[in-house]
Amino acid sequence: MTMHALQELIERLRRLPGLGPRSARRIALHMLKRRDDTLIPLIQTLESVCNTVQTCPRCFNVDVISPCHMCTDPTRMATTLCVVSDVNDVWAMERTHAFRGHYHVLGGLLSAVDGVGPQHIHIAELLDRLAHGSYEEVVFAFNATIDAQTTMHYIMNQLNHLSLRFTSLAKGVPLGGELDYLDDATLSLALQGRQAV
Amino acid sequence: MTMHALQELIERLRRLPGLGPRSARRIALHMLKRRDDTLIPLIQTLESVCNTVQTCPRCFNVDVISPCHMCTDPTRMATTLCVVSDVNDVWAMERTHAFRGHYHVLGGLLSAVDGVGPQHIHIAELLDRLAHGSYEEVVFAFNATIDAQTTMHYIMNQLNHLSLRFTSLAKGVPLGGELDYLDDATLSLALQGRQAV
Repeated sequence: MTMHALQELIERLRRLPGLGPRSARRIALHMLKRRDDTLIPLIQTLESVCNTVQTCPRCFNVDVISPCHMCTDPTRMATTLCVVSDVNDVWAMERTHAFRGHYHVLGGLLSAVDGVGPQHIHIAELLDRLAHGSYEEVVFAFNATIDAQTTMHYIMNQLNHLSLRFTSLAKGVPLGGELDYLDDATLSLALQGRQAV
Repeated sequence: MTMHALQELIERLRRLPGLGPRSARRIALHMLKRRDDTLIPLIQTLESVCNTVQTCPRCFNVDVISPCHMCTDPTRMATTLCVVSDVNDVWAMERTHAFRGHYHVLGGLLSAVDGVGPQHIHIAELLDRLAHGSYEEVVFAFNATIDAQTTMHYIMNQLNHLSLRFTSLAKGVPLGGELDYLDDATLSLALQGRQAV
């Protein structure tokens, strides 16, 4: 069996996040079986993405125009800046339709373990935006991890000369969640953050 | 957000087997971040697969030559034909290095529920190969499902005028499997098929 192109495809698919050898083989065969309505359109779409999608130099979101739609949208409030770790966090926030300010994508979080320092992510650009912009509030929309805490405190320390309001996402019981299955630390935070009904 | 190409890519990835919206978004972002060492090579490999990989007209396996390497390999025994449902079953069999005969890929199994009849899969071609070939044994290497049983019996019925030996994969305890966790039907088959030690 010297099935070069197909073996190479499986090998490349296997290295994509979340895929393993079995799913890579299954996807490769699926594409081969559906050449006209799956494989060829996918090639065209990938080429189109490769040629048109770029990173916004202001917020580091991805878009087909530069600066991105969200940075140039006049209906978005230029007073609130939501700081996220990655582009998929922008998408998650946008799906809620609950935020109408600007974003800043750090491209990662500070991590001593992984050796990620402030120079590796877009912190300098964030500080610059906040120093020269009209922002009043910075919302940290991070995962609830230690690295996120570290990153948030680092950024706040760098900005304590500016009169900004810093907020972060509430921690508590997820909708549909059962207290009995919730970890103790989250339940404790939910109690501390209890609200009048 | 009118991120056409990227949205289209996520939509296309989402429809691949085993992927959902979240994994599609993650893969799309991963490819964007690693344009030079992931996205561009993947496009090239997909194009190469699209242009070179074809279905063997004899056994319906896929390969870069036609007829495929396995059909034309003189070291393979033209006396044993292994009938499988799909190309990935050929790959699974080949990984064992335990079979050195020819293959026939049906491209599916008979299924009353899914409305798959003999005309929808490569049964006519199989009957033709067996009627005009030098095969002595037909090995059914199917999943252990009802549809596989149906398909096997249908094929055997069509061939009872030929003096062929029909075999199917042994059913029993998988290596490393624990009896206590095995379903009763498999354990019962394993007992019926017990072998002298």
